[in-house]
Amino acid sequence: MIRTAFFVSGRTAITAEILGHSLITQFDDVNFRRIVLPFIDTEEKALQAVAQIKAQAEADQCRPVVFSTFISENLRKLFVMDEALTLDFFETFIGPLEKELERQSSHTAGKVHAISNFEEYKHRIDAVNFATTHDDGGMAKNLQDADVILVGVSRSGKTPTCLYLALQYGIKAANYPFTPEDFADHRLPKPLHPFRNKLIGITIEPQRLSQIRQSRKPDSQYAQLSTCEQEVKLAESLMQHERIPFLNTTRLSIEELSTTIMLKAGLKRRCY
Amino acid sequence: MIRTAFFVSGRTAITAEILGHSLITQFDDVNFRRIVLPFIDTEEKALQAVAQIKAQAEADQCRPVVFSTFISENLRKLFVMDEALTLDFFETFIGPLEKELERQSSHTAGKVHAISNFEEYKHRIDAVNFATTHDDGGMAKNLQDADVILVGVSRSGKTPTCLYLALQYGIKAANYPFTPEDFADHRLPKPLHPFRNKLIGITIEPQRLSQIRQSRKPDSQYAQLSTCEQEVKLAESLMQHERIPFLNTTRLSIEELSTTIMLKAGLKRRCY
Repeated sequence: MIRTAFFVSGRTAITAEILGHSLITQFDDVNFRRIVLPFIDTEEKALQAVAQIKAQAEADQCRPVVFSTFISENLRKLFVMDEALTLDFFETFIGPLEKELERQSSHTAGKVHAISNFEEYKHRIDAVNFATTHDDGGMAKNLQDADVILVGVSRSGKTPTCLYLALQYGIKAANYPFTPEDFADHRLPKPLHPFRNKLIGITIEPQRLSQIRQSRKPDSQYAQLSTCEQEVKLAESLMQHERIPFLNTTRLSIEELSTTIMLKAGLKRRCY
Repeated sequence: MIRTAFFVSGRTAITAEILGHSLITQFDDVNFRRIVLPFIDTEEKALQAVAQIKAQAEADQCRPVVFSTFISENLRKLFVMDEALTLDFFETFIGPLEKELERQSSHTAGKVHAISNFEEYKHRIDAVNFATTHDDGGMAKNLQDADVILVGVSRSGKTPTCLYLALQYGIKAANYPFTPEDFADHRLPKPLHPFRNKLIGITIEPQRLSQIRQSRKPDSQYAQLSTCEQEVKLAESLMQHERIPFLNTTRLSIEELSTTIMLKAGLKRRCY
């Protein structure tokens, strides 16, 4: 079964997409064609979007589902039609909140993913700079500024997690790889010694690691399953020995890893 | 006025946070204390969370607002209480969707921010690798694999935008800086010539650029307002001359920039 889902908003439509995506993934056997319509901020653009939705309904011979986040009631109203099921997020929730807080909402569009203030923006950019300059053991001398330091074998997923923590939370995350030389004497790499309390380990199933390394360096010794098994085993035993808490990334997305790291390290986000 | 907002979920609570955040930012004059409670996936943890919410209500002498995304009806029910206003996103929208799609939802938690399949994960990781190796004009030889190439003066916000495009959309975005030498002969840097149709420019107000560079290299010529004015002027004139579409990042967040780039370059996301 194929249905069309539209994500429509006066601004980025990111919130509409996240909301709609979280709902439609609950219907496994429905195949959704997804169409994002951001920056629908005038009546003209709204009427165009409505025409597109109606044309899709006609083509599909089936009602599209429209997920929207309109602050403007005038624009929102235009998307109520027989040809589609429209679920508007603000319409549903702003009312109960206004009642609870005993005040009117500001009805200002695009607050969520707009630049809120320069301070927050700076936190975010500084954290991204920090993550890129402290990637893969780089600039080990400045690790005292890190909020958290991820350790683990090469290709276990440290870099994307650090970048996610920087972009989404404004958290300064460094990462430091464990290389076979580090395991030799069963001790933490020296630059990490002063920062034990900031370390969080990332581990991964050897099979998955081999698969990832394979696509990076095909048929290398580095990608061989036996190499991966050996490295992961030594890395885990080092982390246990040094009492570094560690997470297994094999069944966790970058989001799940990041959320868990925030929780384990007791970190608070610096930007929204 | 200070109120407490809780974001609660059986998984990462990222969806609850984004949706809740988009609602509470509509109330400018209410100062929200935000508490995130992720991974509430057992009755025991739920009862602990409920106790925490009730204690907060007592301390605040005011009802907290609870934004939740519970798939499990049993856990969700526990959060309905006199001491708080609970808004659950699934409860509200799953019903109308089930009716429209004429089937039951799968009631499976954590679909959104979990690893959905290895292919999607690989797109994401590949895109992150691409962005980091093609940052700041790096590896200019492999630009043919880029989905989009951002150009602009140093510190105009190209890097975080490329990383965001990679992490959130699985888009391969390279970035290439315009340096004063490039402007000299009023021509595109040579490595970019074959890829004109992939270029999108980023520009920025000189004042803001100076502010950003100042915090990076205080009191340098690089950060001086006159330097920034000159560079921005030349970069914009080069982009106009070469007919490169460009966006001004000064009033746009990374999310707004990225969404606009997706739209302008006609790109489709490769991961959720």
